[in-house]
Amino acid sequence: MNFNDYIRNIPDFPKEGILFKDITPLLKDKKAFKSAIDAMAKPYQDMEIDYVVGIEARGFIIGTPMAYALDKGFIPVRKPGKLPHDKLTANYDLEYGSNELEIHKDAIDKGDKILLVDDLLATGGTTKASVDLIEELGGDIVGIAFLLELMDLNGREKIEGYDIFTLLQH
Amino acid sequence: MNFNDYIRNIPDFPKEGILFKDITPLLKDKKAFKSAIDAMAKPYQDMEIDYVVGIEARGFIIGTPMAYALDKGFIPVRKPGKLPHDKLTANYDLEYGSNELEIHKDAIDKGDKILLVDDLLATGGTTKASVDLIEELGGDIVGIAFLLELMDLNGREKIEGYDIFTLLQH
Repeated sequence: MNFNDYIRNIPDFPKEGILFKDITPLLKDKKAFKSAIDAMAKPYQDMEIDYVVGIEARGFIIGTPMAYALDKGFIPVRKPGKLPHDKLTANYDLEYGSNELEIHKDAIDKGDKILLVDDLLATGGTTKASVDLIEELGGDIVGIAFLLELMDLNGREKIEGYDIFTLLQH
Repeated sequence: MNFNDYIRNIPDFPKEGILFKDITPLLKDKKAFKSAIDAMAKPYQDMEIDYVVGIEARGFIIGTPMAYALDKGFIPVRKPGKLPHDKLTANYDLEYGSNELEIHKDAIDKGDKILLVDDLLATGGTTKASVDLIEELGGDIVGIAFLLELMDLNGREKIEGYDIFTLLQH
């Protein structure tokens, strides 16, 4: 199955000059969706993992079925103000301005083995902020998985040294 | 398994007087998470369904593993400005002010059989807005599933006549 047939290019979204990679056709096709999740889960099938961590919001779409397929618990990294209990906050830079991500302090214990999941590896900013949150809680990141990697943006440089898997490279 | 043991009550979140139902302990426990998804998918196992529709963001967390378990495609209903292609917008009222939800116009064809999923049935406002979007595109809603129903808020009244399943009732 060529997953690339299910990724739609949308020019000038969210702003002029950006070619947005729309994954909704892949999600909508039941064979493409299941095959993509299975292909992303496969490298981790025999690995010791305690939890899958997914980054809001599209990381939830990929991360929760991966957690289900791998029979692991799921932990959300969320946008500010969404998590109700004691939490840690990480700041990260955007092209203009900055943003924040949060995780519950009691979500991860020291030594917990974590698989971090998101849909897209672009500049790596949100991934790096999530890595920082997990490690500040003592989590041990055993892998980072993405559906799609945008090669030109060199996001890998921000998360060097980690075991990275990307299903598609554009 | 008593799923209620994994729902945490957080007083005064997101504002004073609200008792927030935190589902993150259920998501984190691999047995509770898998059992909850399986129990929510079970009523639909032999039903004719084309797509699972999940509402951003916690509806993604429940809806995508249900789609995976039921071997169906997944369609997101998203907050404003997130979907990149031609879309429909629905307004719905909040306690103070209003909000919007969006769906891609090409997500659903006339007659597609839809299972709508969210984590929480509270006042029913977001559910009703999502129902309107799906039906405006010609979708046929064969079921609406929630992890948790807040009985005091009478959300069912807003979506009367639909086949509603709620795993937990508080």
